[in-house]
Amino acid sequence: MAEKISRAVIRRLPKYHRYLRELMDKDITRISSRELSDIMGFTASQIRQDFNNFGGFGQQGYGYNVADLYQEIARILGLVGDYKTIIIGAGNLGRALANYASFADFGFKLEALFDIDDQVVGQTINSVPVLHSSEMTDFIKKHKVDIVYICTAKTSAQAIADEVIAAGVRAIWNFAPTDLVAPENVSVENVHLIEDLFTLSYFLRGANK
Amino acid sequence: MAEKISRAVIRRLPKYHRYLRELMDKDITRISSRELSDIMGFTASQIRQDFNNFGGFGQQGYGYNVADLYQEIARILGLVGDYKTIIIGAGNLGRALANYASFADFGFKLEALFDIDDQVVGQTINSVPVLHSSEMTDFIKKHKVDIVYICTAKTSAQAIADEVIAAGVRAIWNFAPTDLVAPENVSVENVHLIEDLFTLSYFLRGANK
Repeated sequence: MAEKISRAVIRRLPKYHRYLRELMDKDITRISSRELSDIMGFTASQIRQDFNNFGGFGQQGYGYNVADLYQEIARILGLVGDYKTIIIGAGNLGRALANYASFADFGFKLEALFDIDDQVVGQTINSVPVLHSSEMTDFIKKHKVDIVYICTAKTSAQAIADEVIAAGVRAIWNFAPTDLVAPENVSVENVHLIEDLFTLSYFLRGANK
Repeated sequence: MAEKISRAVIRRLPKYHRYLRELMDKDITRISSRELSDIMGFTASQIRQDFNNFGGFGQQGYGYNVADLYQEIARILGLVGDYKTIIIGAGNLGRALANYASFADFGFKLEALFDIDDQVVGQTINSVPVLHSSEMTDFIKKHKVDIVYICTAKTSAQAIADEVIAAGVRAIWNFAPTDLVAPENVSVENVHLIEDLFTLSYFLRGANK
């Protein structure tokens, strides 16, 4: 089944997850695909089509059970246990991510940060230690780290990715402003924050003005 | 012309901009759509089609002039002057964004941060003052702020958006974990960082396992 599910569908699942959580917070227990469509901005047929990839979640005439659907999507997303994560680069962004409590709420547990700056190594950030990057490979193997967040400069990002992949990591969240290259069995999410700003500047003063 | 350009094309422009910058850094002066395709992962026909939205940039038999193309895309993206920006919420993420120098390199100038916490108001972060949120509307009007980065909790994000829009802001970069509602003449980029992690967990341990 899974081989056929497109990346576009997978990318929409977290949004379903978020909206269903909000419905639960409002004590809404049932919802139709049409109502979901109204609040999410996807068409009802898109929603049904997305859900059909996973068996359809058995909508009755009176809609989906919100809590069941939420649990099912969480399961599909793999939010069923804990993930061990580390952050490479304890600069401002690395620190911000280390302090972002919501990740832990969803099972993404930060085990350590790594840096090469002796001023930073030995500190703790949000109770998590900053270790020296030379210990990175051993740490990954010993603790079976699942996901690495790369928050370094562009110049060192690919070498770090290569090292953590060699150590067994299969998922990388990259904030360095470059697209990392990785083998097919490794998932990489490249985040280019500044590109959001470029989209905003386009609409403010760009080609359409 | 601009009315017909799809959001998908606009979202690809920053990536062209980034790759062209890298080519310039490597002193590469000309490139064909096929070579650009090889390094960027878009098809050559996709690239030509994207560029045709803006007149095609006059590729000759021997390719595009890299520097000209870079400048032209920068112009289309509106990267032609300075934007005044403010950050609402001087927590970890707000601070990380305030310290992110690259934004200023592209003309996004941070004028102030705003917070309601008296412990934080009065500080400076990366030489930028943290002001009290009660001064926000006056500041936006006086300084003609272009873009607001919202880095607050979910519960206050929409009220802040409403306030800054009423004060004249037409572009919002939202990091609060909720999709903000805004009038059509206001551009909003909602960032949901944690959803990248859900994509990674899907591939590590989700439905495809």
